[in-house]
Amino acid sequence: MSNNFNLGIASAQSSNPLPSWNNGTAKQKIIEFVEEAIDQSSPNYVKPSDRIATFDQDGTLWVEHPFYTQGIFALDRVKILAPEHPEWQNQEPFKTILENNQEAISQFTEKELVEIIAATHAGITTKAFIKIVKDWLTTAKHPRFDKLYTELIYQPMLELMQYLRENDFKTYIVTGGGQEFVRTYSEDIYGIPPEQVIGSSIVTEYEYQDGEPVLMRKPQVFFINDHAGKPTGINLFIGKQPSIAVGNSDGDREMLEYTQAGNGKRLMILVHHDDPIREYAYGPSDNLPDTKVGRFSNELMDSAKQRDWIIISMKQDWKQIFPF
Amino acid sequence: MSNNFNLGIASAQSSNPLPSWNNGTAKQKIIEFVEEAIDQSSPNYVKPSDRIATFDQDGTLWVEHPFYTQGIFALDRVKILAPEHPEWQNQEPFKTILENNQEAISQFTEKELVEIIAATHAGITTKAFIKIVKDWLTTAKHPRFDKLYTELIYQPMLELMQYLRENDFKTYIVTGGGQEFVRTYSEDIYGIPPEQVIGSSIVTEYEYQDGEPVLMRKPQVFFINDHAGKPTGINLFIGKQPSIAVGNSDGDREMLEYTQAGNGKRLMILVHHDDPIREYAYGPSDNLPDTKVGRFSNELMDSAKQRDWIIISMKQDWKQIFPF
Repeated sequence: MSNNFNLGIASAQSSNPLPSWNNGTAKQKIIEFVEEAIDQSSPNYVKPSDRIATFDQDGTLWVEHPFYTQGIFALDRVKILAPEHPEWQNQEPFKTILENNQEAISQFTEKELVEIIAATHAGITTKAFIKIVKDWLTTAKHPRFDKLYTELIYQPMLELMQYLRENDFKTYIVTGGGQEFVRTYSEDIYGIPPEQVIGSSIVTEYEYQDGEPVLMRKPQVFFINDHAGKPTGINLFIGKQPSIAVGNSDGDREMLEYTQAGNGKRLMILVHHDDPIREYAYGPSDNLPDTKVGRFSNELMDSAKQRDWIIISMKQDWKQIFPF
Repeated sequence: MSNNFNLGIASAQSSNPLPSWNNGTAKQKIIEFVEEAIDQSSPNYVKPSDRIATFDQDGTLWVEHPFYTQGIFALDRVKILAPEHPEWQNQEPFKTILENNQEAISQFTEKELVEIIAATHAGITTKAFIKIVKDWLTTAKHPRFDKLYTELIYQPMLELMQYLRENDFKTYIVTGGGQEFVRTYSEDIYGIPPEQVIGSSIVTEYEYQDGEPVLMRKPQVFFINDHAGKPTGINLFIGKQPSIAVGNSDGDREMLEYTQAGNGKRLMILVHHDDPIREYAYGPSDNLPDTKVGRFSNELMDSAKQRDWIIISMKQDWKQIFPF
């Protein structure tokens, strides 16, 4: 018993954390922050109940190119549901999807995406929805890597979340993606339970089906947890300002700002996708190709530099990208 | 070290739980449920990650009569803000409040209450709001007991929550009251951290004040966490069906139904206020006086009996009501 107990203590301070990270400023600053946060004699000590770390998902914890995984799920659902909706043949944005017009699909606006989500994610119970998502995730594969989407998670981020949890940080996902969608796999692949997933949601209503209570998903947006929605969502779900916030795109700027605005030292991190060989490269910052999916603008880069946020170069900082 | 460790194990199974509860069916059923839930060899074992217990607040964890504490706070705020709103002198429901018409105040509808909440809880940052509430709670006293509202908590419920936490249940407040209001004191008085408080909320927006990010409370309802809103809120915030749900009024019926609809054995509990000497008595069930504040209808009582929910009689089941 005492052996296990001692092992517990040893792993809590982890002698070799973040093995998939190259030695460099990013890794060094992260470890320095955590060591100070758990050191009661440090001015930067953070009491355990305030050790909150929030992670964006798409592009921060797993691959988001060429298109958000949930977006691909939604496109697949449109095709499956099309026979019940003959009007979609002539109605945008469904027409474009059914015609498989990849170029136009990649140009969908936020508003069109929301419309597709509402049409494909609603009209069923949460229970039925969870089953549909789980089934899809066991078969759908990424077009380039030919792997399940749930395999395309970043090994260095798994290590970072694990390292933080060992040091009593509570790790949260704070995603623009659908909360119920992400919850179907977050515990299995990231070790993050449903109650620590904050995301966008549609209106859900309590109803009865054959006398049994069910939660029915309605085709109406309830909350968009992106950009300024992220700090709002963090306050709504956690009620505390994070110690650490990690993102990768313009949609994460407000979350990082809000984190930094808390008292004392905080850690703000942005993943920069600059590795076209092992993953993808997109900006437009640093003259990388522009994108609508996980855009990292010049303004975000300027802001990050000015505010001393950590920029992770996937190419330089990560020894390995995926667990496989 | 090993001594402390052993003490930890001993207290986790607590040889004398619920000391302020009289021996009776309610106490016995609760202990039986918990002992089975933690016993891996029991068919009613509940794995730790599913050990979720949700508690209503007003009337379940603390006194709600003659009027909800947050309601009294709101009435006080109307009086304080009145000079800035001369129009309130002739505008309902504010006129009634400023005239101190207690009888009419006690008859306010849900809609009027929401209107008052919006007018008194909004137009300020969350940070400013939290300070106002905290200050008020250190001085405002209950008209009958002449105690701070935060002292009027039920000792048997503190013991129940503690007993559940010792057995790895995560305890949540699921209240129709304001989430941000309850969070200001929930950790101090109940040991429940902000991230485990689910409540009603108004729209909150991320803005800048003098270049600093703030969350601004808007005079618009975002979510009403009462009646059918409770299961919706539980799904939104936790994403799991509780193992245990505790309430005391018609507003908790759906939460208990939803809890019971989960697989396997679940524990549904209602507190019945039948002790006019030590606290209050109201129904109208069991021929107790009718009320608009924490109404326990005959329909709820019938439903509870039919569905084998535990009814706690404050008079019979609780040795002691308050910690003092």
